[in-house]
Amino acid sequence: MNMKMMGRVNALILAIEAVFMVPAMLVSIGYGETGAAKAFAVTILIIVAAAGVLAEITRNPSGHFQAREGLVCVGVSWIILSVAGCLPFMFSGAIPSFVDAMFETVSGFTTTGASILKNVEIVPHGLLYWRSFTHWLGGMGVLVFMLAVVPLSGRNDGFTLHLLRAESPGPNVGKITPKMRKTAATLYIIYIVLTILNILFLLAGGMPVFDAFCIAFGTAGTGGFATRNDSLASFSPYLQNVCTVFMLLFAVNFTCYFLLLRKQWKDVLRDEELRLYLVIVGLSTLLIALNVMPQVGSFGTSVHHAAFTVASIISTTGYATLDFNKWPTFSKSIILMLMFVGACAGSTGGGIKVSRVLLLFKSLRRNIHQVLHPQKVQSIRVNGQAMNETIVSNTNEYLTAYVAIVILSFMVVSLNPGFTVESNISAVMCCFNNIGPGLDQVGPASNFSAYSDLSKITLTVDMLLGRLEIFPILVLFSRSTWKKL
Amino acid sequence: MNMKMMGRVNALILAIEAVFMVPAMLVSIGYGETGAAKAFAVTILIIVAAAGVLAEITRNPSGHFQAREGLVCVGVSWIILSVAGCLPFMFSGAIPSFVDAMFETVSGFTTTGASILKNVEIVPHGLLYWRSFTHWLGGMGVLVFMLAVVPLSGRNDGFTLHLLRAESPGPNVGKITPKMRKTAATLYIIYIVLTILNILFLLAGGMPVFDAFCIAFGTAGTGGFATRNDSLASFSPYLQNVCTVFMLLFAVNFTCYFLLLRKQWKDVLRDEELRLYLVIVGLSTLLIALNVMPQVGSFGTSVHHAAFTVASIISTTGYATLDFNKWPTFSKSIILMLMFVGACAGSTGGGIKVSRVLLLFKSLRRNIHQVLHPQKVQSIRVNGQAMNETIVSNTNEYLTAYVAIVILSFMVVSLNPGFTVESNISAVMCCFNNIGPGLDQVGPASNFSAYSDLSKITLTVDMLLGRLEIFPILVLFSRSTWKKL
Repeated sequence: MNMKMMGRVNALILAIEAVFMVPAMLVSIGYGETGAAKAFAVTILIIVAAAGVLAEITRNPSGHFQAREGLVCVGVSWIILSVAGCLPFMFSGAIPSFVDAMFETVSGFTTTGASILKNVEIVPHGLLYWRSFTHWLGGMGVLVFMLAVVPLSGRNDGFTLHLLRAESPGPNVGKITPKMRKTAATLYIIYIVLTILNILFLLAGGMPVFDAFCIAFGTAGTGGFATRNDSLASFSPYLQNVCTVFMLLFAVNFTCYFLLLRKQWKDVLRDEELRLYLVIVGLSTLLIALNVMPQVGSFGTSVHHAAFTVASIISTTGYATLDFNKWPTFSKSIILMLMFVGACAGSTGGGIKVSRVLLLFKSLRRNIHQVLHPQKVQSIRVNGQAMNETIVSNTNEYLTAYVAIVILSFMVVSLNPGFTVESNISAVMCCFNNIGPGLDQVGPASNFSAYSDLSKITLTVDMLLGRLEIFPILVLFSRSTWKKL
Repeated sequence: MNMKMMGRVNALILAIEAVFMVPAMLVSIGYGETGAAKAFAVTILIIVAAAGVLAEITRNPSGHFQAREGLVCVGVSWIILSVAGCLPFMFSGAIPSFVDAMFETVSGFTTTGASILKNVEIVPHGLLYWRSFTHWLGGMGVLVFMLAVVPLSGRNDGFTLHLLRAESPGPNVGKITPKMRKTAATLYIIYIVLTILNILFLLAGGMPVFDAFCIAFGTAGTGGFATRNDSLASFSPYLQNVCTVFMLLFAVNFTCYFLLLRKQWKDVLRDEELRLYLVIVGLSTLLIALNVMPQVGSFGTSVHHAAFTVASIISTTGYATLDFNKWPTFSKSIILMLMFVGACAGSTGGGIKVSRVLLLFKSLRRNIHQVLHPQKVQSIRVNGQAMNETIVSNTNEYLTAYVAIVILSFMVVSLNPGFTVESNISAVMCCFNNIGPGLDQVGPASNFSAYSDLSKITLTVDMLLGRLEIFPILVLFSRSTWKKL
């Protein structure tokens, strides 16, 4: 294990976090929230000191870096990032308990958006800004950001690739450009441009500047922390529609935008993942709209809310315009299915990923064909290209790990008395898939504060497992990771 | 596709079914139920005629029989078996609707035990006997029975193996004896001896003869149809304990009994599946007993009911001594987990199977190790032997198919208004895993009669998919199965 390099990466991560905390402190100062401003100042000092010490003791690391070190490094970095990020909540007294503050911060960085806050409208603006900003940073990935901007001694393309692979969602990270660092930078440029567009569209609809920034951060990262207790219900239909469109945009594989920049329209239109994604969105919206019409009112209003909810769930954002918990069971079943599917690979969204669902479906179809024609060797083709068999079998094993984690978490969370089966299943699904609000007692009109510490810790780990796609966190629990230090 | 051979197999299956319907008719005559007796007589005549015609037009089939033909043959046979088996319910007027009668009959043959009958105590004894007997026949498999007793022209070991593989549960059917026909016979002899023992133990506890036969059939096949509306609640604790023990025994891999007959004690004690099964049973019983103690009463009573429920669910039988639907959420979560796991492979029980869970867990552990040590080639070992990689990847793909079917069925069933998410999830889980009663509105104190025809058909297909382990039914829906007839 290249501990020096890992230490160095973490020093940089902490430094980046400190820099990004400064705007949050300024917001607090601007709103005259001295308590929060002080909390940020103290946190920034602590982080900078820790980063300095860490950088000092990890001078001249070797450039040798393996895939497994990439996984371990990403897992450790996200935990350190979250511990440092939760300090302002604790120091300011907004969330005194460490378990609660970690839940909220991990929920932020992992772009989950599940909250233990009962009333966000009394929380200082600086803290709300920081909470939403963690969505933005976690969405595209803090290590991807580091790779994009910081020159690192001993860094080579292998190192960059391993970290990028470990942090980016989806079954495989292709080499978009020959230079990995340029890839990271391009991804972030697209991300920033889209976020700015989102803010401008929200401001054009009359949303206050503070809210526009927070909501756009939450949309871009597909997080879901809002600035009001009713999420987006009290904003105008125009603003809700802007969010619908941008939630859908941020859940698309960013490679598509990259190809659009290169004017490769045809490749984008032919992309099987994108097409399946659009079909799922369209069909789910239509079915839910028809199903909830008697309850919501006109067809237009039903489509409006159905589209928003579908976009919010499939992108794993978790904003709400109304309490979909009160919808009929059929609509809820579609919502549960969308939670499971999640966004496209290479987006800022969570879940199993549309491309994995596509692969699983194709692998299943092949399995049936192979039973019928055992003599034929059949490869699985996606976008016209034969898939590597390792990716196919890894995807099936990924689902196995996914199911195992859902079941185990569900059982631990169920130790909590007073919660229904539906609440617990959806709580696990929503945290693991980085969505946010679930159904029943953890629905959009409620929050996670009533759960016990054990449940909150389990759900916090689930959020990390979901965001980092299981293995970077799972290897941290493996004995052999720590054997040969 | 060897249609002649398939026709011949089905003619035999129908003949066997007709023979087994005679005792049911005699029971009806004995109880003076003329309507039911007539219904059986008419059905037997129809079945015999159909079998005769089918046998006549499929003379001299070729002996060539492939694995895929085994799958298709098993899928088709089970559907024909069920259609013929549901006729007495319809003709007697006990269950007039075809969809309902099919639901009940498929529920019987697949050893599910889910019922649409609101009051079983008014149903004629002959029909109740037949209903319970379908459990017994479906448990070990009707094709296995045919292979054991009927000499079939053109039959060879390949043919036998393909049919046995397609009908028997579990990831792989080993060749227990060199002669496959002898294997089938040995399995049935063990099955019959255990069933007789079960009946004797029930009679010793004072259970009426009729009930003892029906309950033993339901226990042996791990089915769950009872003769009273409260399932087994009104029987004595001794009788309930007999059922607990026998449910657990019938959920063990029958290879273990085979090894015991050969006095290979050590192999049985070392069997990893059996050990995991016993650990799950023991641990679940203890956890549930502790969890329900405040509600049920003393520790002894809690253990009694917890053990019965755990045995009933993990063996996928579905008998009940009390309404576990009223238990705390943690106990319900364990029950949901047990539904998912199911019995041992090579038993009469359903579910994913303990050996598959073991394999999935080992494959997951290997996946983590491989990420950490990519250079090492690691094989998965079960009972000291390296597993074939095809079985490992098939098991992962099996889970994928399993999850896909659960989600799709859940969505279709949810089209039914007025049922909760919990009811629908557990209804699908209980039918697909061949258990029977679920939670909430389909709990032990309730039944499936309120579902719409569409839901009932979906759940009926789920029962068949579960009992035949997906592929024999799935290939029936594949275009290429029917292309080259």
